[in-house]
Amino acid sequence: MAAAPAAAPTHAHSGIFSSGTSFPNFRSAAASAPGWRRREPYRAVSVVAGSAQSAPGAVAVDNEVDTLLDSVKWDSKGLAVAIAQNVDTGAILMQGFANKEALAKTISTRKATFFSRSRSSLWTKGETSMNFVNVHDIFLDCDRDSIIYLGKPDGPTCHTGAETCYYTSVYDALQSSKPNEGRQVMTTLYSLEDTISRRQEEIVTEGGGKPSWTKRLLLDNQLLCSKIREEAGELIQTLLENEDQSRAASEMADLLYHAMVLLRVKDVKMEEVLEVLRKRFSQSGIEEKASRNKS
Amino acid sequence: MAAAPAAAPTHAHSGIFSSGTSFPNFRSAAASAPGWRRREPYRAVSVVAGSAQSAPGAVAVDNEVDTLLDSVKWDSKGLAVAIAQNVDTGAILMQGFANKEALAKTISTRKATFFSRSRSSLWTKGETSMNFVNVHDIFLDCDRDSIIYLGKPDGPTCHTGAETCYYTSVYDALQSSKPNEGRQVMTTLYSLEDTISRRQEEIVTEGGGKPSWTKRLLLDNQLLCSKIREEAGELIQTLLENEDQSRAASEMADLLYHAMVLLRVKDVKMEEVLEVLRKRFSQSGIEEKASRNKS
Repeated sequence: MAAAPAAAPTHAHSGIFSSGTSFPNFRSAAASAPGWRRREPYRAVSVVAGSAQSAPGAVAVDNEVDTLLDSVKWDSKGLAVAIAQNVDTGAILMQGFANKEALAKTISTRKATFFSRSRSSLWTKGETSMNFVNVHDIFLDCDRDSIIYLGKPDGPTCHTGAETCYYTSVYDALQSSKPNEGRQVMTTLYSLEDTISRRQEEIVTEGGGKPSWTKRLLLDNQLLCSKIREEAGELIQTLLENEDQSRAASEMADLLYHAMVLLRVKDVKMEEVLEVLRKRFSQSGIEEKASRNKS
Repeated sequence: MAAAPAAAPTHAHSGIFSSGTSFPNFRSAAASAPGWRRREPYRAVSVVAGSAQSAPGAVAVDNEVDTLLDSVKWDSKGLAVAIAQNVDTGAILMQGFANKEALAKTISTRKATFFSRSRSSLWTKGETSMNFVNVHDIFLDCDRDSIIYLGKPDGPTCHTGAETCYYTSVYDALQSSKPNEGRQVMTTLYSLEDTISRRQEEIVTEGGGKPSWTKRLLLDNQLLCSKIREEAGELIQTLLENEDQSRAASEMADLLYHAMVLLRVKDVKMEEVLEVLRKRFSQSGIEEKASRNKS
């Protein structure tokens, strides 16, 4: 791991990361990276010494990358906030800081890389745990002082083994005298998935009592299947009978919920479904692009 | 707007924000806040002078809030990174910094509030634009030096009018000599929604040519409806015929995609569907809690 100064590099305009800094060339890294609507491999990179295939040699990042790196508003310590987000679920996995070198390395290797302020060195998430965050795209904010690494984690991102580092709810903590950790940050779709999952657990542990609707569905495949058919029919009806938009949203919500109960019974996660969609549509995007080039 | 020192308040252990700092008391704000699995209104707050109903008076935040605010690892300037995320879509809307006072104000008012480093003052997102981010929950990371405000924006968050501040893709920028702005950060579900939407635009603008599958569905309601019925049937089949998990994920992907094409025809967004689900299940959660309390 290369030691990186906390201050912004001063050689930004003469091709940063010349001899002595080792990271793979942009072309090979981009070509092998998985991608959702993957960009074409970035081509305008000149390898000035060595190559990723032989010995990891120094690369001269060309003017375009230099210009981009220089356009980031690095703070007085040469840093910007860098947030890793799961491309499929939207979960914010972790937040660290990047310096110019960390961003350049992330661009080239497509592994989320940060600058560790405590160790004053570059740090690629996963270099120890092997739970890399495989970066599909990188976004800058309007002020160009904040970065999102949008990617797919190989496994839990937090050093505690949690999927995300954000598992402490402030409102939970304020309502309980005991430390409340374990309910990780979740957006609506995954909160719903979690709710369904907890209902399944209740089936196992509870005795009698009146079951919730979700419980009943989880226990009765025929009921669940008839409901999915029914909800699909009602969604279709909103189109065929020109029902209003709120009705369509409501029927889609019903269909999605019931289908997610089926996924729970099959032990399939929404994240897997979204991964299928991502791979399918990035392929379709590539095909589309190819067909456009022909015309 | 109260001027806040960049340094961490020094009166943290004697009930912060005593006389002179005006923000509503915790109880009234929490009681009126919308919420996804909303916590009970936070009760352990004592109003020491005035009230939110009469004049906005000073409140003494009790020990629990003090303890929580003190547990955050504020940096040498008394700040921590604060990220606003859309609770329904997962979109990262903006990133700023919070000091102790900003976090306290966010906890109490449920409007995402930051500390503006340039103006050295508290800044509630939306105080000028009225596009508040209505906070449903707040999460701290494992190191307690990073905060997520998980909430629902009233409108576009970025000062440019964009939904999110992150609309500059690094890889797009590297592949184009012209500045590439406008493709905002999107996770898989919303990338798919965007793809479907762009196919609809192509229908309007393009002449002949072989239409994509999405285009054909968008043009033919009967075809679309028969496909939704078919895909619902195939998803059901994975359960009834005990097909494997990858098959279930694939069929769910098919159903979701085709249903999203119908939403596009109806001009309904997935965000609206998720909002329906959030409201429905937070209600259900409240009912569930009420029924548990009875038993």
